[in-house]
Order: sequence, then structure tokens, then C-alpha cells
Amino acid sequence: MQLPLRLDRTNSQRLHLQLFEHIRRLILDGRLRAHMRLPASRVLAGDLGVSRNTVTAAYEMLMLEGYLAMHGPAGTFVADTALADGPTLPSAPVRDEADASGRKRRARLAFRGEAQVVLSPYESSARYDFWVGRPDPRLFPLRSWERILKRTLHAKPHRFCEYGSPAGLPRLRSVVAAHVGVARGIETDASSVVITSGIQEGLNLVARLLVQPGSEVAIENPCYQGAAHLFASYGARLLPVPVDVDGVRTARLPAEVACMYLTPSHQYPTGATLPMSRRNALLDWSERIGAYIVEDDYDNDFYYDAAPLPALKSLDRHDQVIYLGTFSKCLGPGLRLGYMILPKHLVAAAITAKTLLNTCAPWLDQALLAEFIESGGLSHHLRKLRTVCGRRRDCLVAALREQFGSAVEIAGAASGMHLIWELPKHLPDAFELESRARSHGVGVYSVKTGNALVMGKALGARYARTLLLGYAALDEGEIAEGIAALGRAARVLAGSE
Amino acid sequence: MQLPLRLDRTNSQRLHLQLFEHIRRLILDGRLRAHMRLPASRVLAGDLGVSRNTVTAAYEMLMLEGYLAMHGPAGTFVADTALADGPTLPSAPVRDEADASGRKRRARLAFRGEAQVVLSPYESSARYDFWVGRPDPRLFPLRSWERILKRTLHAKPHRFCEYGSPAGLPRLRSVVAAHVGVARGIETDASSVVITSGIQEGLNLVARLLVQPGSEVAIENPCYQGAAHLFASYGARLLPVPVDVDGVRTARLPAEVACMYLTPSHQYPTGATLPMSRRNALLDWSERIGAYIVEDDYDNDFYYDAAPLPALKSLDRHDQVIYLGTFSKCLGPGLRLGYMILPKHLVAAAITAKTLLNTCAPWLDQALLAEFIESGGLSHHLRKLRTVCGRRRDCLVAALREQFGSAVEIAGAASGMHLIWELPKHLPDAFELESRARSHGVGVYSVKTGNALVMGKALGARYARTLLLGYAALDEGEIAEGIAALGRAARVLAGSE
Repeated sequence: MQLPLRLDRTNSQRLHLQLFEHIRRLILDGRLRAHMRLPASRVLAGDLGVSRNTVTAAYEMLMLEGYLAMHGPAGTFVADTALADGPTLPSAPVRDEADASGRKRRARLAFRGEAQVVLSPYESSARYDFWVGRPDPRLFPLRSWERILKRTLHAKPHRFCEYGSPAGLPRLRSVVAAHVGVARGIETDASSVVITSGIQEGLNLVARLLVQPGSEVAIENPCYQGAAHLFASYGARLLPVPVDVDGVRTARLPAEVACMYLTPSHQYPTGATLPMSRRNALLDWSERIGAYIVEDDYDNDFYYDAAPLPALKSLDRHDQVIYLGTFSKCLGPGLRLGYMILPKHLVAAAITAKTLLNTCAPWLDQALLAEFIESGGLSHHLRKLRTVCGRRRDCLVAALREQFGSAVEIAGAASGMHLIWELPKHLPDAFELESRARSHGVGVYSVKTGNALVMGKALGARYARTLLLGYAALDEGEIAEGIAALGRAARVLAGSE
Repeated sequence: MQLPLRLDRTNSQRLHLQLFEHIRRLILDGRLRAHMRLPASRVLAGDLGVSRNTVTAAYEMLMLEGYLAMHGPAGTFVADTALADGPTLPSAPVRDEADASGRKRRARLAFRGEAQVVLSPYESSARYDFWVGRPDPRLFPLRSWERILKRTLHAKPHRFCEYGSPAGLPRLRSVVAAHVGVARGIETDASSVVITSGIQEGLNLVARLLVQPGSEVAIENPCYQGAAHLFASYGARLLPVPVDVDGVRTARLPAEVACMYLTPSHQYPTGATLPMSRRNALLDWSERIGAYIVEDDYDNDFYYDAAPLPALKSLDRHDQVIYLGTFSKCLGPGLRLGYMILPKHLVAAAITAKTLLNTCAPWLDQALLAEFIESGGLSHHLRKLRTVCGRRRDCLVAALREQFGSAVEIAGAASGMHLIWELPKHLPDAFELESRARSHGVGVYSVKTGNALVMGKALGARYARTLLLGYAALDEGEIAEGIAALGRAARVLAGSE
């Protein structure tokens, strides 16, 4: 696609700002429509005779403002929601050029959806990247993994040539049931476990079971994007429930919903831990109105100062909690293995939905993981992770205090892999700081770029002053250097104001 | 669950038939409801004081008649459609015992669906199992795989700890684009490829993009269950298009649909190859009415007597064909890797749907496969497979002629991994032969147990005389012995009539 752009080199406005404004205009005018792909930065730079950095800077600004979305190597696209605040939404499907002539008909797209942020939303990674929820590859138990791999591959290679059980490898279902018994106090057995490709796939099965167009689904506000966008894509009406320092405010639960999705161990993104009183209130409410509770326990393996509170599922007297767990945080998301613990009466339907979805999970990955857990490898690895990541958290808190004063307002640091920082008044807002920090080689993330969704304007303004800082993938030296660089970026910004 | 059953040992009716009738009655009376799990055969046998074989035999009969469904190790359940022919359907959700008292409320299930057959629908595998679509584990390129695995694991272990691109590993997308160019004449590039967890997941993405409640979807009749059940579970109205010896009858295409799903290379289950004239007619029709074509090319790697016809996607002048391919047949379904080649204007939406679905495919499996293809391993393997499976097919045809006379009516043998056999008049119908063959250690499959769906009573009666025979996973000796055993089973059956 050749964009109808011309930059004015005599104009004092810097080229990337001109480019930003031109492209924004094309989107608002409807000439660039949702899902259209933009030229690669290298190509556009060549077309315009500017440096690639100019194009990259413009694209990044457009992404931060929600006009563009990046889909990894597929490229940069006009975001689905680019016009969400404007007067009209582009109609589905996107019609290509030939359609304009009216010659071609095409079935309408049934799908309307927006994706969560999966990778750091920048083309290149920062030198010190405080991206959220990423484990440290240097801690991955590669040697054990390789040993188990060799053994497994030789023991049952024929499994490559067979479909597996849709609910998951029987042995993995058993060890997961045992694992959540010890780790989360959940009394269950293999028959209630369904292996999924991460929590996101578990959410999909939940959506298929419980959501149809018009269904009401309660979510936390703010909330994990991947859940909110998913339920919305199935036509759910989202009912946001406010969150405070103790997590979701159970006094504000709605009167009637199909289900409530939440992250009680370490609320995403605020990091709050739901206290026992609210856990009980939530369970009473769910029983009273017949709603299912969807408990996303994404980073429960990471706790530091005290043992974690019992999972909602472990307190579930009426079999109404669907528990979602994952190995993406303690091992790595490249594995794509997670699990659901289901109420007994939903198991058969969930297995049917999983069978229709993608038949079953890959054999080898499941077999390896089962062996790794059963041989004690996981427990050992988790103990190590907690020690190392606890130190990293302490180091991050100390570095923030050193750079920004002892009164820095930090929350969500009792557990998990990230904390949040309420920016002091003398600093600019999160979007600006994020953008400036990047030019200093530091990746920090606003709530929105960090994969959370905030509903409502007032709350949006409040969370525009919150920064997310993941600390699990950087060592203590990197954390100290990164926060020092962030301090320099902030001082430059303050000085230029 | 304790079933209210008592067997009459003085009754001359054999125990498994009594048990079959008792359970059938409980289902028809509504005392056993859809999705309820039956006791394990071992447990029920203990409760009733009968042999486990008695229970297994009764369960298998109930499965054949559609009253029960097996979900692998999750156990045996009352089928969703057990009452489909009766006066009332059980209402969703299944309520457990406490519900009967009216004390408990629960959100209604939004999901209504039935799963395709994934594993051979029997508890134990037959000695000679002609199950469809299964590759031979003895042919899996284990040594190359292991070599590549070791190299890949050491080169980039950090990939375990990262999310990948939702559309798939960039390198795998490139090699797949190159592969379908050579193998299927499809001109495409990496940007149109989305990696999926097998064809089933590709079908899901199609359903999410194109199907909403009430959408009309054309399917072949008979058709692959996994597609028909999936579209139905999304609320599609299925419009069956009849199939003859040349595949789908393009003269009978409907006037208006969102999409048409078909298997042109080797129609499932009949094995017909769609001739060029019909391919062109189909493409003209799709352009005229604006319908998308969903081309499932599941076993196109297996052709024997002539080069395959070009894929519909390779003839797609208007970018309206969604092509689905898989590595489940040439390597193995335990890998869970397939791909879609999408029309340009659907790529962004498909990637969004995939991101919401399960973020991305596992890293290691993708990296291995990319390397295997790029190093020439796949081409070499495919040549070998075609030689070996061609011989197996010849052997199966010869064995059937030897056992059942030279006039055996065989079809679908020009390509693929299975053929169909129209049973001669002197043999009983497919269900009975299937059941009897199993007691002789031979697994053969009726159209229904072999994962196909037939719509309409008249057609159902016709296909009740058709048997599916997969030959790719048995060697020539096993095929000859298996068909000889089938011959003995048939003669016993004929003799007892």
C-alpha cells in the first residue's frame, strides 16, 4: 500500500510529528480503515526519504494513542478501536479496493474483537525492559528439561502419531490435581482438570460455555485486557466492578450476571490481594445469584512475605468456581500449557468444547511437564524462583526510593512479578514517561500498554498516572541501572518543562 | 454414581443385552441425563457382580447407538444427543442432585455442542485397527527429529520464556508459504499464513470470523464431523450439499451462505476427488454470491497414481478461499501443528481471533518443524510415505478382493489414507459388521463411528452400508491378516443368519 503522504521539510514541526498527524488524519477521515496494514517502517521510510527512526517514532506514538496496533511480524495495522471515540465505527468486513467499485460482494465478518497486548508493544526491546509477567530465561531449568526430554522421546515416540485425550494427558491431569492440592489447597482429582494452551485458552472455553451475545459478565475495573476483550468478542456486556487496594469491591457486585472474572491472588494490574472477608462475600454472592466465578490465578507461584491466601476454588462449597492456572509464569509462556479446574457438572461440556476447539494439547510438551512436576523439579524450581524474585523486588523498591525519594507510592509488591507505582505530581503522566524512558533505553509501561483495560474516563485519568514495573526477568544489577536511567529520563523531562 | 440396576440371571437374555436395555431405559426416562458420567466399567462390573467384558460390551453398544459418548480418560458420558430423536431435549445446564430440591440456582450454559470422534471410540484398540487418518508411528522420522531438537533447544532456549507471535513463528510461516507453493501450487507469502493447533483450530478461527447464530454454512453431505459439529455449536444453520463419486455436487449449491466448507482433494469420508470443472464452478459461485470457501486439505500429502489437482486456493482469483493444512497426517497429530492460508483482507482479523484464543503456538514444536521442513527433511519423508502407503493401499485392495470377491465396490482409493467399501448385499450393515469384527480383533468403522456426519434418513440408510478402512498405519502383513480375520468374522455372521 502506498500512503498518500507528503512531508513538509520547511515546516519547523519535527518530521515524526508531521507523520503522526498525517496518518492520524487518514484514519479519522476513514481513508485508512480498521485492520488495514501499514507499510513496514523500512519501506515507508524509503518512500518518504526519511530515516527509519522517524517512521518508527510516529508509529509508536500512534500505537500509544490507540490508532495503530502491532501484530508481531504480521506488521502494524489500523486498530479496531481507532475510531471508537469518533462518531462512526467502520463496518465489518473491511472491503478491499475492488469493493469500492461495487463489483464484488463478500460475506460479512461475524467477528468484532480487539486483541490483548502479547508482546511488548514496541518494535525493538529496551535495554532495561520492565515488561510485565515475563520470566527470566536465565532461570529456566534447561538441563533438567533436556534430560527429561531425551528420556520421554525414547520411551513413547509413537505418541507423536496419535491424538491425545482432549482433556489432556492423563498423567499430567493427575499431577496437576496433586500440585494444586499442595500449592493452593484445592481438593480435586484428575477428572476435574482440563489441560489448556495457557490461561487464555481456558478463558475461551469459559466464554464458550457461559457467554452468548447479550450475556452479562462482571469484570474487575481495571482488568486484564485478554479477558475483557475476549468476553466482549463473544458479545458479552461487560459490567465493571471497581477495585481498591484490597482488590475487587464486593459491596459493588452486580445483581445478576452469568459469571464474574477476577484475579484474587494478585489483581491485574493493581497487584492487590483479595482479603478473606471479600473472598467469602464473593462466594456467598455467587451462590445467591447463581453466577459462576472465574478465578484467574496467573502468578500465584510468586509470593514473598507470607504464605498466599487460599484460592477461591479451595473455599468453593457449591462447585461454582472455575479455576485457571498456568505454567507461563513459573516456566515460560513459550510452552503454552495451563489448566482449568472445573465444577464437576461442567467437565463434560468443557471437554466437548475443547475437542471442538483444537482436539487436544501437544503430546511431548505435556509429557515433559508431567515428568518435571512428578520428579520434584517444579517444587525445587519454585523455591528458587521465590528467593531470586523476592530479592529482585526488594532491589526495585530500593532503587525507586533512591531515585524518586522515600515517599514513592508503590502497591502490589507483596506477591507476583510486577508492582505498580503511582507517579508523583512533579512527573509527567505515564504515557509521556513511558515514551521518554524508551529513548533512554528503559521499558516501563502504562496500564494500557501493559495489557490492562480501564473502563470509564475518570478512572482512565487516574490510571494515566500509574506505571507498571515487572521485575522477574531482570537481575539486581539491571534493575538498579534501569531505574537509574529512568531517573535521568525523568529529570530531563522535568528540566525541559 | 450408583446406578439403580439389577440384572436377572435367570433370564435367558444375555447379561450385556439386559444391561444395554436397562441403561437405555434410564436415559429415555430422563433419569440419566446428557453429560452425566457413567461409572467406570470396572466399577460397575464390581457393583453388579458381572465380568468387566459384559459392561464394556453394553457400553459399546450404547455408544454405537448414540446414547453414550466417550471422552477419553474423563470416562463415559450420556451423549448430548441421546434424546435427539425423542420428544424432548434435556435443558442446559445439567443440574446436579442439589438442584432437584430447588435450593440452588445456576447460570445457564450458553454452549450446546457435540464433539467429533477423536480416538477410536472403543476402550481398547483392536489387534488390526483400520482406524482412519492415523499415521504409522514406525515411520516417524525420530532420528532427524531428535537431532534437530537438540540443536534448537541449545540455540534459543530463551524462547521458552517468551510469548511468540500470535500468527506463528516467523520462520515457520515462511517455510509453510514456500512449502504450499511447491506442494499445492498456492502463491502466497508468510504474511498470509497463520499457524494453528491443527486444522480443527483453523476451523474455529473460521467459525469465529464468519459464523454467528443463524449464519448459513454449506457443508458436504456426508461431512467431517469436527467441522459440522463445530459450526453448529456456533449457532450456524447447516445447509448440506450432496456428494457423489466426484465430490460435492456443484449444481446443488445454495443461493446464499456465509461460507462453504469442503474437502476437495479427498472428500471426507467418501474419498472422492473434486474434478477441475467443479472446482471452477465452485469458485465462480463463491464470487457470484460473495461466500467464502473453506478448503480443508487434510490428507493431500498422500497421492499415488497421479499428481494431485491444484488446490482451490491456487485457483482463487478473488481471494475468497481460506485454505487449511496440517502436519497431523504426514508427521502426527500429537504435534498439533497446522496452518491457514488466508485472504489478505482477513489476516488481521484472524490474528486478532488467534491472539484472543490462546495467544500463540508453542515455541519449540514450531521451531523444530520449521527446521525439519527447511532442511529438506519433510520432502524426503513425504516421498517415502507415498511409496510405503501406496503399497499398503494396493495390499488392502488385493486383500479385500481375495476375501470378498473381485467385485468388491471400493472408492476413494486414488489418494489419502483410507478408502470406502460399499458392503455387498449378503453382508450385514456396517454397524453390525463393525461390532462383530471387533470381537475378532479387527477395527473397521462405519461412517458414523469413523468421524463423519450424514444428514437425512435416506442417506443415513445408504451410508449404513459403507465401511471406512484406513491403511496408512498398518504394514502389508498386518493388512492381509486383518482382512483375513474380517473375512472370517463376516462368514460367521453370514452362517448365523
